[in-house]
Amino acid sequence: MIYWDNAATTYPKPAAVQRAMDRALTEAGANPGRGGYPMSLRAARILLDCREQAALLCGEQDPARVILTPGCTASLNVVLQGLLRGGGRAVISDLEHNAVVRPLHALSPSQPVYDVVPVEPGDPEETVRRFAAAIRPDTRVICCTCASNVSGLCPPVRQIGRLAGQAGIPFVCDGAQAAGHRPMTPDEVPADYLCLPGHKGLYGPMGTGLLVCRTQPAFPPLTQGGTGTASADFVQPHELPEGYESGTVNVPGFAGLAAGIRFVRQQGEALPRRQAALMREMYRILRRMPGVVLYTPEPDEEYVPVLCCNLGAWPSEQAARLLARQGLAVRAGLHCAPLAHRKYGTLARGMVRFCPSAFTTREQMYRSCKIIEECARKALQSEK
Amino acid sequence: MIYWDNAATTYPKPAAVQRAMDRALTEAGANPGRGGYPMSLRAARILLDCREQAALLCGEQDPARVILTPGCTASLNVVLQGLLRGGGRAVISDLEHNAVVRPLHALSPSQPVYDVVPVEPGDPEETVRRFAAAIRPDTRVICCTCASNVSGLCPPVRQIGRLAGQAGIPFVCDGAQAAGHRPMTPDEVPADYLCLPGHKGLYGPMGTGLLVCRTQPAFPPLTQGGTGTASADFVQPHELPEGYESGTVNVPGFAGLAAGIRFVRQQGEALPRRQAALMREMYRILRRMPGVVLYTPEPDEEYVPVLCCNLGAWPSEQAARLLARQGLAVRAGLHCAPLAHRKYGTLARGMVRFCPSAFTTREQMYRSCKIIEECARKALQSEK
Repeated sequence: MIYWDNAATTYPKPAAVQRAMDRALTEAGANPGRGGYPMSLRAARILLDCREQAALLCGEQDPARVILTPGCTASLNVVLQGLLRGGGRAVISDLEHNAVVRPLHALSPSQPVYDVVPVEPGDPEETVRRFAAAIRPDTRVICCTCASNVSGLCPPVRQIGRLAGQAGIPFVCDGAQAAGHRPMTPDEVPADYLCLPGHKGLYGPMGTGLLVCRTQPAFPPLTQGGTGTASADFVQPHELPEGYESGTVNVPGFAGLAAGIRFVRQQGEALPRRQAALMREMYRILRRMPGVVLYTPEPDEEYVPVLCCNLGAWPSEQAARLLARQGLAVRAGLHCAPLAHRKYGTLARGMVRFCPSAFTTREQMYRSCKIIEECARKALQSEK
Repeated sequence: MIYWDNAATTYPKPAAVQRAMDRALTEAGANPGRGGYPMSLRAARILLDCREQAALLCGEQDPARVILTPGCTASLNVVLQGLLRGGGRAVISDLEHNAVVRPLHALSPSQPVYDVVPVEPGDPEETVRRFAAAIRPDTRVICCTCASNVSGLCPPVRQIGRLAGQAGIPFVCDGAQAAGHRPMTPDEVPADYLCLPGHKGLYGPMGTGLLVCRTQPAFPPLTQGGTGTASADFVQPHELPEGYESGTVNVPGFAGLAAGIRFVRQQGEALPRRQAALMREMYRILRRMPGVVLYTPEPDEEYVPVLCCNLGAWPSEQAARLLARQGLAVRAGLHCAPLAHRKYGTLARGMVRFCPSAFTTREQMYRSCKIIEECARKALQSEK
């Protein structure tokens, strides 16, 4: 199998990730931050280590501002629902995932409280102008992905963040597809709340996510309960990070994520550059291939390495099935991002998505292109 | 170290749990239920296996009624907040954990919307009468723990469930401390919604929990997002289980939990019986020990094996520190259950908690009692 579904979950994980998880299970298997005995303290140190790695990745001084969550979807929900608790509207891009759209839609299904701004590829100024024009007096949050999980297109979050700051509106960024590929520092992603998954480009295990709060949240968490702090109080403590981490935190998971972030940080610039180059070359090969339908221009710095296509007139699921039979693990359908598929005109048939990881080789890419070529030929033949 | 903090997290885990997690990471590292390629299907099968194991444990026919959550706190929050979305009140026992009290308290901090019923040890009929008397016309949920995480006391959930059923009020059970020790079948725990942690008596890893829905929920999940189903729809699907599992589910975690539940089911009756006998013996030894303050009668069938005590007049934290220095890993303080500590008159100093697991030996128990004896003597001396 050649694994191309890294935009969903990176696979394999670096060996250090599994080692860290194993060690956490055997050597730090107690509740963190609750007991005073050594193994509980070891577990607490693992969580702190993960917060510190995340803080370094995101250019944060204070690791307490990193909340550990079960995933990016959980991070987005707590912030978006929190900021709109008292009413008001959201401005979002037309590349957002259902993890953004569905919680917003649920706030008022009959009369949606979000305004969708089309991102203009190649024209960041125009995109920012559209965001500015969409702001209303009751806009309480601007939310934008750092990279589309369908096309890899990166909206100008730096400028959108500046706009939000000037307008005094909290800025939320979904870094699901960009983390591990782009800098997440306040300069590049000036988000008040940065939501990240652990299991994609940061190479942690599933079941882990991050919520980096550059602004102290004024909203309560979605889940309340035991925090190991102020236990006599029926009122949930609001302190970061415990107030937003009720219940027992996934120590082995975050041990793995800490190792994953370390791996990403150690590789530095070379890691995203190599993957971007790989996908650019793949794009050039596929572009010349009869029967392969591409939807984006050749990917430049405006894109993270995610490549979506279709074969002939086939529904994407049919193409993915044939590719899977030939040993390619790809993802078809709408990738939980109907807004983006509407933008690209593929709401009906979806797309087939390819995404590399640190472990994808040039040879795998060439072999995959050969397989795609054969499958595309079959797709064209079936039309005759 | 002799580990006694199993009421927080069981340690160690059965070898099969770590093996299952390792295998999931290396052989089923893809997103479950999203892709159509073999590794994604393997991941989906792991989740189904965990649901099936949980369904067998809880006497459920349909594994789709088992929602996989990040923990028992998450399970309780989605149900309690969900049932009270439209207003109304809750009836709860005076043994509830902050995972129950805090989300209820947050609904209306100035005018609490929950009524607390004292559980009468040794008199289930009286306890049920009190629950019946607490029901008001606007009671929308009755919530009761299956076992106190402080004293191990088990309220008569079978009868309380019958009462709730007769009154037509949804019954929520917190099985955090009872799962793995007591039957969780509809006969014994007739809960509409049964909330369970993965990492305690079911021997799964941290970061896993279950929500068994014997009644189809009419409330939305707390977290919305990608479900891999109906992706074009901005409205969160309500189907069980996906509608309540937005985002990527923790596959290695639930692989571990499936192995943990298998371990518990294979051991059968012998597992809780052995631990109960161990703690009864420990109780008898501690009862005769000068300086050891016990708060419950000798544990019989009305208790799961959790034993709380204090040493002399010391705050529980001081006792736990000394015990930790002698190699005992115990938990002091309020155990996130202030209601229970108020009941036992220990809100000020907390208690020191001992809880065994499948791996606690008689020898460890005897050795621990010797250490407790020495520490209790020091506590008494310090009073002179």
